[in-house]
Amino acid sequence: MVGAGFGGLRAARALRRTPVQVVLLDRNNYHLFQPLLYQVATAGLEPEEIAKPARAILRGQKNFDFRMVEVTRVDFAAKRLDTSAGPISYDLLVLAPGGETNFFGLESMQRYGLGLKDIPDAIAIRNRVLTSFEHAMLEPDAERRRALLTFIVVGGGPTGVEMAGALSELIRLVLVKDYPRLNIKDVRILLLEATDKLLAALPERLREAAGKTLWRKYVEVRFGASVSDYDGERIRLKSGEVIPAQTVIWAAGVRASPLNATLGIPAARQGRIPVEPTLQVPGHPEVFIIGDAAYREQDGAPLPMVAPVAIQMGQSVARNIARLLSGQALEPFNYRDQGTLATIGRNAAVANVYGLKLSGFPAWVMWLVIHIIQLIGFRNKLFVLINWAWDYFFYERAARLITRD
Amino acid sequence: MVGAGFGGLRAARALRRTPVQVVLLDRNNYHLFQPLLYQVATAGLEPEEIAKPARAILRGQKNFDFRMVEVTRVDFAAKRLDTSAGPISYDLLVLAPGGETNFFGLESMQRYGLGLKDIPDAIAIRNRVLTSFEHAMLEPDAERRRALLTFIVVGGGPTGVEMAGALSELIRLVLVKDYPRLNIKDVRILLLEATDKLLAALPERLREAAGKTLWRKYVEVRFGASVSDYDGERIRLKSGEVIPAQTVIWAAGVRASPLNATLGIPAARQGRIPVEPTLQVPGHPEVFIIGDAAYREQDGAPLPMVAPVAIQMGQSVARNIARLLSGQALEPFNYRDQGTLATIGRNAAVANVYGLKLSGFPAWVMWLVIHIIQLIGFRNKLFVLINWAWDYFFYERAARLITRD
Repeated sequence: MVGAGFGGLRAARALRRTPVQVVLLDRNNYHLFQPLLYQVATAGLEPEEIAKPARAILRGQKNFDFRMVEVTRVDFAAKRLDTSAGPISYDLLVLAPGGETNFFGLESMQRYGLGLKDIPDAIAIRNRVLTSFEHAMLEPDAERRRALLTFIVVGGGPTGVEMAGALSELIRLVLVKDYPRLNIKDVRILLLEATDKLLAALPERLREAAGKTLWRKYVEVRFGASVSDYDGERIRLKSGEVIPAQTVIWAAGVRASPLNATLGIPAARQGRIPVEPTLQVPGHPEVFIIGDAAYREQDGAPLPMVAPVAIQMGQSVARNIARLLSGQALEPFNYRDQGTLATIGRNAAVANVYGLKLSGFPAWVMWLVIHIIQLIGFRNKLFVLINWAWDYFFYERAARLITRD
Repeated sequence: MVGAGFGGLRAARALRRTPVQVVLLDRNNYHLFQPLLYQVATAGLEPEEIAKPARAILRGQKNFDFRMVEVTRVDFAAKRLDTSAGPISYDLLVLAPGGETNFFGLESMQRYGLGLKDIPDAIAIRNRVLTSFEHAMLEPDAERRRALLTFIVVGGGPTGVEMAGALSELIRLVLVKDYPRLNIKDVRILLLEATDKLLAALPERLREAAGKTLWRKYVEVRFGASVSDYDGERIRLKSGEVIPAQTVIWAAGVRASPLNATLGIPAARQGRIPVEPTLQVPGHPEVFIIGDAAYREQDGAPLPMVAPVAIQMGQSVARNIARLLSGQALEPFNYRDQGTLATIGRNAAVANVYGLKLSGFPAWVMWLVIHIIQLIGFRNKLFVLINWAWDYFFYERAARLITRD
């Protein structure tokens, strides 16, 4: 089992009564609750509150073992994984290596832009945003100060929308109190979206609500804005427009883990590997691929790279492994879409869940409840809840530390 | 005002009604509660819980300003500081740059040993300890595995004693549950002390109690053990003894900030600058030095490099600055020793406070209460308290993440 994300973890847990020895491999020792990563990036939560060590999560499970290694190559013929700690053989393999930030070959963005896929990414954004304010306070030149205080988020999907909303609230509700000499008119937050839609998965009414809410929070939402280059000082759009900005957060895409490229199988879009309806690799019934790394179409569209797909695939694979061992026929995977949720700040969210279309305060409450329920570990739930309450009532963000490297 | 530690922060706050403009400089944007740093290093607390942004602490103070800069040199003649953001002039200067780990010129230890003075230090220790267990699980060679699981703490002062106790509990109460295949007999924790005393500031009965408690927690306490060399693989003692150990935590000494060396004043022991009884620099009545960076003797002994000295010096300097401005004579500084406290793990501490000598559970409760009171910010108090309760009742340490660099 490769990867302790939503898919790998769910599969490992669902196999607890199956007569197999589960060995979970991950380069990190923890499972990360990625949907709240943007809150770490905006100083609302501490990294330890949205992550939990894999060993601690699956501690009671008798047939479970964990190894902190990086898997570098998969050899289907030899049934062997090459890892940072030497080769590991397998009988059955579940690949759930997840995804990474997709810069679409934009090298300058890869160098100067900030992705948001892991804890170090989130800490880097937090450090950059807070440091920009400290530097702006020291900057006598007005143009340079404005560039320091211009924050660009690229990508109008859930990550970009949530990031832009949280960033605006961090600055306009919290940091203004820390920087009484700051001229808030020097601050700009832009959300650049290449198409003419935010949150494309949502129905139009909710998309419109999301855009309006962001605008009311002083986020300049730009549609049809494609990035052509970024040199760390100014971002250049395909239209020819140039915006000086010291901070660009890239939330415009994900692609499958680079491990996929070692499999020797032609990849589909975003580096994802096409799998059978049973999530097996064609020609290798002992290998399953799930989550962001797998490519499946359903109802004519590819399944999205989101946590619910990975979780359901993990459950499906665990069931199919049990069937495989008892000689039964495998069942095809069928994704049940439970909907989409995105929050845009305090009291504001959009939700399209089980056919229910909500926006504003009711959607926000639903977002809170669902995320608290899904967080792993009672302690994490409690701490996140206290932090949110604190933020809500006192307009404070606790984790405003700049941690030097 | 240079340095947002205990001394600088207290002085800045105490100057709130004095007709001066206070500009606080620090290379970090936060004040760190150093006495609990060892708990971050042993995964008991999160860094955000023992640190608070300086701007947030002094937010309401009208005559306060903060700048995140590193001060590289002080020019007394020009009344100017050289900083990472250019020169800054001053009328009155309070230097409170604090201390750093003192490796006593032991270069090999500086390279391979782990200090404990700042948040990155603490995270580095946490990462190293947890990674050692992960690597030990992958290590087939028994000797190498034992070296991975040998943890050496050098220095029997409060930091070393608290570190060794907390490390032992992390391993024996928490990590054993995460690593069911671990042979606990492979784990060694050694505390090396060059003299024949732990916690030299305490009376003998309490010193004995501390040593016994550590021993009961399976910490091998070695007296008369001086380190001569460490190559990252094995530590060599002056006695000729060689101990293979992958992790050495250096808690054997502190010295004043390197900023002291730029002052052009001959330093006393540990690089500290001798100051007048009023804490002024001889010949420069407009410059005060406080905290770890200052050298003062009282009752025939140098004042220790601890938080209470810095705090009281900060208060004294603030009063003296007010007197200086109103043309009154300055008052000499007089340290009131409130005692010493050190904890050695659950239910165990030693305390010598206001003449009261306690050990065991009562001392531990006193330690808890005093530290919670002194932590800055209600939220930090609350979170630390919840974490401690969690640890106490469930034998858990929440922050067991290995964060990649």
